[in-house]
Amino acid sequence: MPQPKLFRIIDKAVYDYRLIEEGDRILVGISGGKDSAALAHYFACRQKQGRERFSFAGLHVAADIGSPVSAELRRQFAQWGVPLAEMSVSVFGRLKPGHSMNCWWCSTQRRTELNSYAIAHGYNKIALGHHLDDMLETLLMNALGKGELSTMPPRLTYQKYPVTIIRPLCYADIPAIVEHAEAYSYSTATCTCGYQENSGRKDARARLAALTGGSYAHKRRLFEALKNIRPEYLP
Amino acid sequence: MPQPKLFRIIDKAVYDYRLIEEGDRILVGISGGKDSAALAHYFACRQKQGRERFSFAGLHVAADIGSPVSAELRRQFAQWGVPLAEMSVSVFGRLKPGHSMNCWWCSTQRRTELNSYAIAHGYNKIALGHHLDDMLETLLMNALGKGELSTMPPRLTYQKYPVTIIRPLCYADIPAIVEHAEAYSYSTATCTCGYQENSGRKDARARLAALTGGSYAHKRRLFEALKNIRPEYLP
Repeated sequence: MPQPKLFRIIDKAVYDYRLIEEGDRILVGISGGKDSAALAHYFACRQKQGRERFSFAGLHVAADIGSPVSAELRRQFAQWGVPLAEMSVSVFGRLKPGHSMNCWWCSTQRRTELNSYAIAHGYNKIALGHHLDDMLETLLMNALGKGELSTMPPRLTYQKYPVTIIRPLCYADIPAIVEHAEAYSYSTATCTCGYQENSGRKDARARLAALTGGSYAHKRRLFEALKNIRPEYLP
Repeated sequence: MPQPKLFRIIDKAVYDYRLIEEGDRILVGISGGKDSAALAHYFACRQKQGRERFSFAGLHVAADIGSPVSAELRRQFAQWGVPLAEMSVSVFGRLKPGHSMNCWWCSTQRRTELNSYAIAHGYNKIALGHHLDDMLETLLMNALGKGELSTMPPRLTYQKYPVTIIRPLCYADIPAIVEHAEAYSYSTATCTCGYQENSGRKDARARLAALTGGSYAHKRRLFEALKNIRPEYLP
């Protein structure tokens, strides 16, 4: 079977940033959505190719809000050969008095559990499902809001923890992932909790669309520009 | 008389980038438009303040297309104490066979003359009227079109020539300049030649407006982000 188009896009990112290396033990953050499902599917296929020896498993950190991993997606994971561990955290229980629930708090709590689990179980890498649009939206939020040129990088080694964060979907935009998820009938859910006061990201998504006209070529060149910085021609 | 608001914006750029230094001999490129008129007016006022000893003069490089410097603007220059030299270049005469006229060719030919004049007459700096919007538009064109993070910097020392290019309007956007030009009744003209096949820049202007919503705060933070690059959080 030929490689799906999305997997060739991921292959390039894996090559460019050495995201999978011999002997890696990779924990994949599984949300129940299509981004992380595609990532798990990719790791399963990549492992079968035998290009390098590595192990991986998915971890779903369930919370008291958000969608669970559907029974059908569990069957797909089993079929692909993706081991799935699960744990749960009460994001409400951890909320400090006087604070209200929001996407940032929920995701931070779940990320903390993901990190702890990876360290406790000897994983050296954590793979996250952030994609090209996520990364460019963060770029715009940080530039326009904080006056800082930064985003979520494809590969980030923590200073404090013995794990490296990898984002193999860094070259894939939303349309590519949606097309792939439909073609492969992923049984995924989108978070529909009522606490998504995430107007900053919604706003950034609209700005990115306006800036690039939705063009994949423009998005990719904008991303490449971040690797091709010419200090002599900057303020 | 209090400093005009635009001049306080220019003051900050002059301070941040040391654009005017003791003993400077500055040649100001005069197009006949409001950007370079504001720049010449600023230099005349700055010189009267005596904050540093420097000399300056304007040079208008007339071409066989584009608007001349109006008689009324000449009177304003004389009133402000701005010396204005002039020369002319045939941008059509220099056009190579098979090529058609465009903004890039016209401005490159005029810039070459400006550079040569500055060097021949012992100027150590050339001041250009590019403003914040120009610089951010160039940033977007280079990022989306070339995959490169670069623009016209506020201060650029040529490798080949003994002159430094300065852009004191780097913190001023179009609305600030228009408001100033109206308040001070500048008698300026906008180039209306029929060869402005400059769709790349028009397109970039629309993208910048869509990205920032025209907000000066957003434009300034985007510019600040170029000075606040976090390599560890970039691809």
